[in-house]
Amino acid sequence: MDCEILTVGTELVLGLTVNTNAADLGRALAAAGVRVTRSTSVGDEPALVADAVRSALGRTGVVIVSGGLGPTKDDLTKTAVAEVFGKRLVRDEAIVQRLREAFRARGVQPMPEANLVQADVPEGAVVLPNTRGTAPGLWIEDAGRLAVLLPGVPKEMRALLEQEVVPRLQERAARASEPRIVVKSRTLRTAGIGESAIADKLGEYHALLGEHVTLAFLPSLAGTDLRLTAWNLPEPAADAALEKAAAALQPKLGGRVYGAGDEDLAAVVLGLLETARASLATAESCTGGLLGARITAVPGSSRAYRGGVVAYGNDVKLAALGVSADALALHGAVSEEVAREMASGVAGALGVDAAIAITGIAGPEGGTEAKPVGTVWIAVLWRDRVRAFTHVFPGDREDVRGRAAQWALDHLRRAIQDAP
Amino acid sequence: MDCEILTVGTELVLGLTVNTNAADLGRALAAAGVRVTRSTSVGDEPALVADAVRSALGRTGVVIVSGGLGPTKDDLTKTAVAEVFGKRLVRDEAIVQRLREAFRARGVQPMPEANLVQADVPEGAVVLPNTRGTAPGLWIEDAGRLAVLLPGVPKEMRALLEQEVVPRLQERAARASEPRIVVKSRTLRTAGIGESAIADKLGEYHALLGEHVTLAFLPSLAGTDLRLTAWNLPEPAADAALEKAAAALQPKLGGRVYGAGDEDLAAVVLGLLETARASLATAESCTGGLLGARITAVPGSSRAYRGGVVAYGNDVKLAALGVSADALALHGAVSEEVAREMASGVAGALGVDAAIAITGIAGPEGGTEAKPVGTVWIAVLWRDRVRAFTHVFPGDREDVRGRAAQWALDHLRRAIQDAP
Repeated sequence: MDCEILTVGTELVLGLTVNTNAADLGRALAAAGVRVTRSTSVGDEPALVADAVRSALGRTGVVIVSGGLGPTKDDLTKTAVAEVFGKRLVRDEAIVQRLREAFRARGVQPMPEANLVQADVPEGAVVLPNTRGTAPGLWIEDAGRLAVLLPGVPKEMRALLEQEVVPRLQERAARASEPRIVVKSRTLRTAGIGESAIADKLGEYHALLGEHVTLAFLPSLAGTDLRLTAWNLPEPAADAALEKAAAALQPKLGGRVYGAGDEDLAAVVLGLLETARASLATAESCTGGLLGARITAVPGSSRAYRGGVVAYGNDVKLAALGVSADALALHGAVSEEVAREMASGVAGALGVDAAIAITGIAGPEGGTEAKPVGTVWIAVLWRDRVRAFTHVFPGDREDVRGRAAQWALDHLRRAIQDAP
Repeated sequence: MDCEILTVGTELVLGLTVNTNAADLGRALAAAGVRVTRSTSVGDEPALVADAVRSALGRTGVVIVSGGLGPTKDDLTKTAVAEVFGKRLVRDEAIVQRLREAFRARGVQPMPEANLVQADVPEGAVVLPNTRGTAPGLWIEDAGRLAVLLPGVPKEMRALLEQEVVPRLQERAARASEPRIVVKSRTLRTAGIGESAIADKLGEYHALLGEHVTLAFLPSLAGTDLRLTAWNLPEPAADAALEKAAAALQPKLGGRVYGAGDEDLAAVVLGLLETARASLATAESCTGGLLGARITAVPGSSRAYRGGVVAYGNDVKLAALGVSADALALHGAVSEEVAREMASGVAGALGVDAAIAITGIAGPEGGTEAKPVGTVWIAVLWRDRVRAFTHVFPGDREDVRGRAAQWALDHLRRAIQDAP
C-alpha cells in the first residue's frame, strides 16, 4: 500500500517552522507497512491544498493530511478536501456537543455561533476524536480513494495518528495484502567511541547483512547510534532479519553498547546505581550543570542522585570541593590532578559511593597550544577508586559540553560494569 | 518570482531524518524575495525525482533541489534533471581536477576511475563550487526554466545557498521586478507572562497592523515570542511596516520584553550583571543543574557566573546551603522559606551579588493536592534583597524544568532592571 503525506501551513513552506510532523508521519506509516512515496507541503491557500490533494490521490489513492484544520486556519483543509471528493459539508451534532463543553469549561458562555462551522464535516466522513484539542481528525473514504485529515498541532497529531489512524491503516493494509510489507529499524547505541573505531571493530560485518538490511552510522552528541533497517520485507521476515543482524553486531561492539532504541545513557547509569544501592554526586566546571541536568531529567533520579557542585570559578573549586591550591597552581584547572580532587572532594562532601567530575575548555576562548579548545579531563569515582580520562572533543562550545557530559556518564557506566 | 523546493532522500519520506534543509531553503528564499509555493520530498528513485522536477517546473518554472548528489547517492538528481531538460552529460575538467586533489589529500592514489562520473554535468550548466565537500552545486537554466541542484549535507547546502544561490536569485529577481517583493519577520521575546495576559495587554493592537502585517504568538519553554511578519511587500515598504509595528508593540509590553530576534535570556542577564560588575551563583533543586547549564552555555559567562550547588537531596540543602532543618520540616522543601534560604545560602557561601534559587516538583511523581506537580518556588537575590515567587507550570517534567529555569532568569532580569 502506497500513500502520500501532505502538510499544510505557510509557516512550513517559508521555513519558519521545521516540519517535524512530516517526519513523525513518515516513521509511523513506514512502521505500519504503508510506503510513503512523496511528502508535500503547501501554504494555507485552499486552491493549493485542493490541487495537492487531487494530485496525491491521482498518484496513490491515499493521502494523509496534517494542518489547516481548526478555527485559526479557517478549516481550509476540510473545505478543500470536501471539494475534491465532491461532498457537501454537514453538521455533526456530537462535535457541536464537544465544542459547547469545551467553551463551558473555559468559562465562555454561550459559545459564539461562528464556532459552529468547526462541527461541519464532509458527508460520510468518520470523525476521529481528538483527546488533546478541539479539532477532530477526519477519515474520508470514497470510490477507492482515502484522505485522512489531522490537526497540525504536533501533540494532537501524534496522539490521533497512534490511537486512530495507524490501527485503521493496518487493518486496511491487512485486507489488501498478507503478509504486510514493512520497513523496520532497530538501533544500538554506543558512546565513548568514534565512528572509525567502530568501523574497525565491525570488520567484514557488512557482508553478513544481505540485500534487504542496511546499517547506518548516526553520530550525535549522544555518541554513535548504529541503525539496522530491514527494507520492504514481509513483517515476520523483517523481524527475523533484524534479530539476526543485531545478534551478530552486539558481540563485535562488546562493552561499548550502552542501550537500544531511544534508551538514555543517564537512565542506564541510574539503573545500575539503583541495582547496586549506590548514591551519586557530580562536580562540574566547563559543563556548568549540564551533567546534573542530564541526570535529573530522568524521573526518579532522586533515588540515586544526591546533587553536586557547579565549580565554574576556581574559588569555588577551592572552597566547595577542597581542591588544593597547589594542584591548581601547578597543573592548572584543566588537569588530571584537579579532576581527581574534584571527584574525591564532592564524594567526601556529600558522602556518596559514586562521583563524576568534569573540567575542560569548552571554547571559543581559553585554548592554548598544550591544551586546545575541546580538552576535557573527566574523573569518575566508584567505590573508593578514582579513574581519570582525557579527551579532546571536536566541535563548538555546545558540542564539547554535550560530549563531555555523555562521555563522563559512559566512563562511570564502564567503571560500574567493569567493562573495557 | 515563485519557486518550488524539492528535497530528495528516502530518509526524509520515511521520517528517519527531520527535513531541516526544506526549512533552511524556505527561509533563505523568502528573505531573498522568492515566494516558495510548494515543498516536496521524494525518495532516492530517479523516476520520482524526474517526475517531481517536471511538475515543479510546469507550475512555477523554478525548482531548487537538495539531495541526491554525490557518489553515495549515485548522482541520481543530476541524471534525472538532465533528462527533464533534454541535456546530455559532459565531463567538466575543473571538477575532475578538484576530485583528484581531494583523493590525493586523503592519500588515495590514483583516484578510482569510477569516481569520474561525479565530474559529469548537464551541458550548459553553471558549476557552483562547494567549499565544504566534494559534490558541487549546479545551476541549469534553459528556455525560461531554472533548476538549482544542491547537495543534501546540511552544512554544504547552507554554504552554497548563501554564497552562490541567493545572490544569483536576487540578481534574477531584480531583473524581473523592481523593487523586490519580500516576506520579512521581526520577533520580540517575552518571558514570565502567558499568552492570554499578553493578549490583554495588546488590546486593540491588531487593528493597527494593516492588511500586509500579521502578528503570531509563538509559545515555547523560552516564553512567548511575538513574531511580526510583513507579507509580499517591496523590501523598503516591508522594513518600514515592521519598524512601525514593532515600535507600537514594544511599549504595550513594557518590561516583559527581554530581547529581539533569537537573543537568549541567559545572555541578556549576564550582560546586565557585567554592566553592573556583579557576580552570580545558583542553587538548584528540581532543575538539577539546568539553570547553570543555560547560563554557562553563553561564551564568556565566567565573567559573571561563579558556580553553584545542585541541592537535589534535602541533606545537600542542609549541608551545602545552610538551609535550616526547621524550614524544611515546617514548610517542606518546596516552599517560599526554603527557596529564600537557598538563595541566601549560596550567595553567602560563594560571596556573590546575585543568586537564583529554584525548588519545585517536576513530576511525574511527588505532587500533592496542596502542591501539585508543576509547583515551583523561585527566589532571586539582588544586592542583599531577596524576592520570592511561586508558579504552577503546566506540562511534563521537561516542560516544568525548562520553564522554571527560564522564569527564574527573568525574575532576576526584572529585579536588576527594577521592572514590574
